Amino acid sequence: MAETTEGREAPMREAAQKEAGQKEAVQEITPQSEDFSRWYLDVIRKADLMDYAPVRGCIVFKPDGYELWERCQAGLDRRFKETGHRNAYFPTLIPASFFEKEKEHVEGFNPELPWVTHVGGEKLEEPLALRPTSETIIGYMYSQWIHSYRDLPVLINQWANVFRWEKRTQPFLRTSEFLWQEGHTAHATEEEARAEVMRMLDVYTDFVENDLAIPVYRGRKTPSEKFAGAVETFSIEAMMKDGKAVQAATSHYLGTNFAAGFNIRFLDRDNQLKLVHTTSWGASTRLLGCIVMVHGDDRGLVLPPLIAPTQVILIPIGGPKDREMVLAESRQILAELQAAGVRARMDDREEYRPGWKFNEYEMRGVPLRLEVGPRDLASGHVVLARRDTLEKLTVARAGVAATVTNLLGEIQKNMYRKALAFQKEHSFAADTLAELAEILEQKTGFVLAGWCGKAECEARVKEETKATARNIPFEVPDHLHLSPSRRCLVCGEPAVYSVWFARAY
Amino acid sequence: MAETTEGREAPMREAAQKEAGQKEAVQEITPQSEDFSRWYLDVIRKADLMDYAPVRGCIVFKPDGYELWERCQAGLDRRFKETGHRNAYFPTLIPASFFEKEKEHVEGFNPELPWVTHVGGEKLEEPLALRPTSETIIGYMYSQWIHSYRDLPVLINQWANVFRWEKRTQPFLRTSEFLWQEGHTAHATEEEARAEVMRMLDVYTDFVENDLAIPVYRGRKTPSEKFAGAVETFSIEAMMKDGKAVQAATSHYLGTNFAAGFNIRFLDRDNQLKLVHTTSWGASTRLLGCIVMVHGDDRGLVLPPLIAPTQVILIPIGGPKDREMVLAESRQILAELQAAGVRARMDDREEYRPGWKFNEYEMRGVPLRLEVGPRDLASGHVVLARRDTLEKLTVARAGVAATVTNLLGEIQKNMYRKALAFQKEHSFAADTLAELAEILEQKTGFVLAGWCGKAECEARVKEETKATARNIPFEVPDHLHLSPSRRCLVCGEPAVYSVWFARAY
Repeated sequence: MAETTEGREAPMREAAQKEAGQKEAVQEITPQSEDFSRWYLDVIRKADLMDYAPVRGCIVFKPDGYELWERCQAGLDRRFKETGHRNAYFPTLIPASFFEKEKEHVEGFNPELPWVTHVGGEKLEEPLALRPTSETIIGYMYSQWIHSYRDLPVLINQWANVFRWEKRTQPFLRTSEFLWQEGHTAHATEEEARAEVMRMLDVYTDFVENDLAIPVYRGRKTPSEKFAGAVETFSIEAMMKDGKAVQAATSHYLGTNFAAGFNIRFLDRDNQLKLVHTTSWGASTRLLGCIVMVHGDDRGLVLPPLIAPTQVILIPIGGPKDREMVLAESRQILAELQAAGVRARMDDREEYRPGWKFNEYEMRGVPLRLEVGPRDLASGHVVLARRDTLEKLTVARAGVAATVTNLLGEIQKNMYRKALAFQKEHSFAADTLAELAEILEQKTGFVLAGWCGKAECEARVKEETKATARNIPFEVPDHLHLSPSRRCLVCGEPAVYSVWFARAY
Repeated sequence: MAETTEGREAPMREAAQKEAGQKEAVQEITPQSEDFSRWYLDVIRKADLMDYAPVRGCIVFKPDGYELWERCQAGLDRRFKETGHRNAYFPTLIPASFFEKEKEHVEGFNPELPWVTHVGGEKLEEPLALRPTSETIIGYMYSQWIHSYRDLPVLINQWANVFRWEKRTQPFLRTSEFLWQEGHTAHATEEEARAEVMRMLDVYTDFVENDLAIPVYRGRKTPSEKFAGAVETFSIEAMMKDGKAVQAATSHYLGTNFAAGFNIRFLDRDNQLKLVHTTSWGASTRLLGCIVMVHGDDRGLVLPPLIAPTQVILIPIGGPKDREMVLAESRQILAELQAAGVRARMDDREEYRPGWKFNEYEMRGVPLRLEVGPRDLASGHVVLARRDTLEKLTVARAGVAATVTNLLGEIQKNMYRKALAFQKEHSFAADTLAELAEILEQKTGFVLAGWCGKAECEARVKEETKATARNIPFEVPDHLHLSPSRRCLVCGEPAVYSVWFARAY
């Protein structure tokens, strides 16, 4: 379908690029190799995803950042509804007494809770916490709604803002207020609840791998890393380009812990009054941080087509004498792309030169650039530039919408393949703590190791290497060949589990 | 297209209705004529739209209520995007000092603000308010973002939860926490800002009249009723079935008030540093209250097809021997409706009888019921029952999807016509305060009257009649024939304005 050579307008465009200061644009972003953290902060601000807010640890989601979140919402919400869930909305403010009903929960969240103590000038009788998560208030409501096995299962999700005043904050990854969804379900049996927990982990995996092109390791959290109040927590863990981990989503089996705390009982078919089994599961705006840090490069963002607000940017090229013709043809192409369901936009501003625009949309991560120039048009072609490979393709003008649609699909797949290869290359196995420490220092990535199951050994790993147990994976990658007689990396006793260790955001 | 007679399964269905306790269902809802307020509270709980939360003045939006809100969001969001706006998200918590920057604003909102004073066990240096609206924090951010005329206009909307601790609360209409959208725009000139204010009032009118089938009176608020901090506020006012008003949406011209408070200046083309002109506009979950109180009747909700989560409910009818055949045909019809883009569901539960289901879905306001019974099928028919007119139509089984699609359009139009006729019948003119008081006592509705413009006269109306100035309408309905030499209804001086007065939620 395409010649894989440089576009025919290449000389003109190259000159334009130099002139319009490609260098400047690139220089403003710290290279990843120099300082990954700095690179991240440079990119998210330069690409206009966020700004710092005048409130400790809070950010503003600017339109380009918020639109990524809207697409995450759409992709997840569709899947939640397809699996039988409905949305609802519960109050943000939770009475202090509610937190006392589940012991682990209160201990886990208390230090981070913002408290409303006054309204207007008057003091409240009971302080109200801003929700850090809603198990308590939803548990209370479920106790009002659930009476009989006929009321079960309850399958509800909430899109909401939540508040956790953590010490160290990082845009998208850890902010005092963030946006998320939290699913809360109630079931008659443990078996059903556990099936739900796995179903939602599958939903997250499907969304993150297919829509965000981010491969993940699926597994169970160690007891010290599980959600405060859960029986078991499962997570999907994504690997950033600096080898660090981000927990992309979690799904919790809460057992009857919250049901007991809030007295959520139902009359079962056998006429016995029983506690329900609940689950909760969540994904948040930290997904935006993952998208940036898994796919981005020194030029800026690289957005997977399925999530990119703009999938194709059209840039008309050429001197004043060709302008009308090029613009007319560009508009026609834009219409063809939009008719084919492609999210295409045109930048025909005259005050910016093509070279400047090339840099700008590369930095913003637009998956495909479509250049329309007079000489290419004369020979029946246009030029496409892929953001993922930086390749340029000269393709036939006729049927360009189909070419673009196919190419967007190919880019989506390629981005996943690339991230998968990176994940594999940066996944290691270690037999001892020393080996693990060495790998983390020299190679960066995730390290799989045997673990006896004792919290002391897990804590020791964290102390010595700053790596935490990410999860106990369901499956171990083939290339790692763990010994069946492996031992705990710390104490040397027989290993009960294989655990992914990594430094994490 | 349809025989307007009773369906052929009528005798069977009537028997079923009696048996399954239609009476009971109806009796649980207080008749509107007996106590409209009670009726409202009965309907929203029985139709499962909401529940009371264990936090003062807060409610839970249950799935059926929240889905109505999701459809309002979709209808508004599409229109906001079509008019060039993008969504963003700003922090919920606003530093105390921000409220001091605009004098009227702080006076208007201070008594209702919940304050976060502590986090964990520690006291904050500066208390943080939960946003009642976001002009202040957004104004601060705009001052960081706007430098040149090239940065203008800024057209941003936010979907968010807001907090106003009001004394009297009412589900959907006035709750301590509610959901809304708030648009915030900044412009180079007053003219442009004022055009935006009107554009958004048009957007709200279009949505409320066309999608919600609710006619509104458009106009300007009196100074005492305008938004705290605005130069002028415009509103659309809807009339409930008890004749009371609900402000369905507002659009504010804020002038340079917030720009001055937050120092939002830009370098204009003429090289002068100028203050921007800002606007804000909002609609909230009180729209759900409007939908219920404009269209509902003694049987329960009546939902306009465009906003109804379920547009058609299919109910298979008939004895055990026909069950398989009826079910198979019902599934086929369901598939045809869904393929035609109709939001159709089937209730084939065997533990509930058809009569019970008829009542249930009437109470929930589903616009059309489609009954599939063996005898109708044998003659190539099905029965449709309209929720808006309670009419039953026997229509051909063939082409039923097209029939249903047309009928849903007709129901939408009819509901608007009906509400418009009601609005007209309950709109009056009065020359004196005594006349106004008499109309409000005897007829209920909106009363148009001349007003001199003095706050004292406006206040007097409120004292004597509990009616407030809703707005100064752009257009006076033809049938009211106001005298060109009309006078203020209170002081008798020449009237400067015509004002809608009504009791309001």
